[in-house]
Amino acid sequence: MGFEDPVFEFNKQIIEATHEYSVAYKINTAFYESRGSKGWESLEKTVHAIPKGIFTIADAKRGDIGNTVYHYARTFFETLPFDAITLSPYMGEDSIRPFLEYDNKWSILLGLTSNPGAMDFELMQTQNGRKVYEEVIEKCASWGSPDNMMFVTGATRAEMLKEIRDLIPNHFLLVPGVGAQGGSLELTYKYGSNNEFGMLVNSSRDIIFSDSTENFAENAGRKAAEIQGQMADLMEETRK
Amino acid sequence: MGFEDPVFEFNKQIIEATHEYSVAYKINTAFYESRGSKGWESLEKTVHAIPKGIFTIADAKRGDIGNTVYHYARTFFETLPFDAITLSPYMGEDSIRPFLEYDNKWSILLGLTSNPGAMDFELMQTQNGRKVYEEVIEKCASWGSPDNMMFVTGATRAEMLKEIRDLIPNHFLLVPGVGAQGGSLELTYKYGSNNEFGMLVNSSRDIIFSDSTENFAENAGRKAAEIQGQMADLMEETRK
Repeated sequence: MGFEDPVFEFNKQIIEATHEYSVAYKINTAFYESRGSKGWESLEKTVHAIPKGIFTIADAKRGDIGNTVYHYARTFFETLPFDAITLSPYMGEDSIRPFLEYDNKWSILLGLTSNPGAMDFELMQTQNGRKVYEEVIEKCASWGSPDNMMFVTGATRAEMLKEIRDLIPNHFLLVPGVGAQGGSLELTYKYGSNNEFGMLVNSSRDIIFSDSTENFAENAGRKAAEIQGQMADLMEETRK
Repeated sequence: MGFEDPVFEFNKQIIEATHEYSVAYKINTAFYESRGSKGWESLEKTVHAIPKGIFTIADAKRGDIGNTVYHYARTFFETLPFDAITLSPYMGEDSIRPFLEYDNKWSILLGLTSNPGAMDFELMQTQNGRKVYEEVIEKCASWGSPDNMMFVTGATRAEMLKEIRDLIPNHFLLVPGVGAQGGSLELTYKYGSNNEFGMLVNSSRDIIFSDSTENFAENAGRKAAEIQGQMADLMEETRK
């Protein structure tokens, strides 16, 4: 079996098998860029293949000075039709501002990430007796609103989601790290949900790489349905 | 006059006019990505058009968890033949490590940037009475060596380069912000140089956009020669 663009073909089959269980797709740009301009073509085709009404996130973690990020905002919100992009806050307000000027688009800022390296700087103590990530989340939240900003908060540090909820009760959280990285869906829900649930819980490798045979799409659909079922049960709890 | 790829044609003429005065070219990925896969094609052609022996920097400011940045490292060090890439340190060690595992390649970490937003987090006080950027530079420096790591330190805060030199006496500094952003070459040299000079001072807009007529390349060459002359005079000082 040969396809002209096997990455796009894989994605198309994954989308077909999983879209009825999905509220959002998060596409990680690194995996496309590593194949150069051909990879960017696969990325373009993939985002266009996602059914209308499903939220699309460019997991790109961009960040630069104002005159540069203006071009990144164009890249992901105009050239490509993404609804949202993940952003690195290190360089401060002018590195985020151009993304917030779009209507109906979302900036998803790195707060407390799921990886071991979060210990190095995000969890460093500041002069105020707080952690860097707390200062970052609070200050970034002041630049936008729950209607155009979310935060990445890793499931591998679920107990810390409680303090994050005190800082930003109304923002959506994008929660990676459930599954392959070891985070628990139940604990994430327990500490991270708000009255309106307020979380996008991301499972990527657990779904798309659940099976490496020719049945990969069918099994990805089954895995997506399983996780969607667990999420639906938890959302039922929220409504009580 | 019509060219199939006018961005590449512009770059090619700029490179031809400036390469004899240049030790490095820094290519900002945002300006290519905003044109999608076509833009990535221009980027690929541009980096291949730079003469051998001139140092090439992908100004991409990437950063993500380990399994993802592995793909960014492949992107810029294998798929594309860059010598160096700028990286955002917010996510910590595993977000940088894969880049350091390449021989003869350089990671250029954001330390203290030249933009107004540097005030927000980089200049925040930590528990130790230091600034976040100082902790970042010191810890990042411990992961590599002056032979595979440099730091971005903005010329718009030249006086702070002195403290940075105390932390990392032997690392090269990549210094943007001279020219269009208002930084001074003399002050940058005064506070940022070491015994071996130790700085890549970046001038971009001042050179490539020095003239918007059909003589743009000729004038870019003249401007590059002028800045190279100023640099040579300062290097002469270092030797004294």
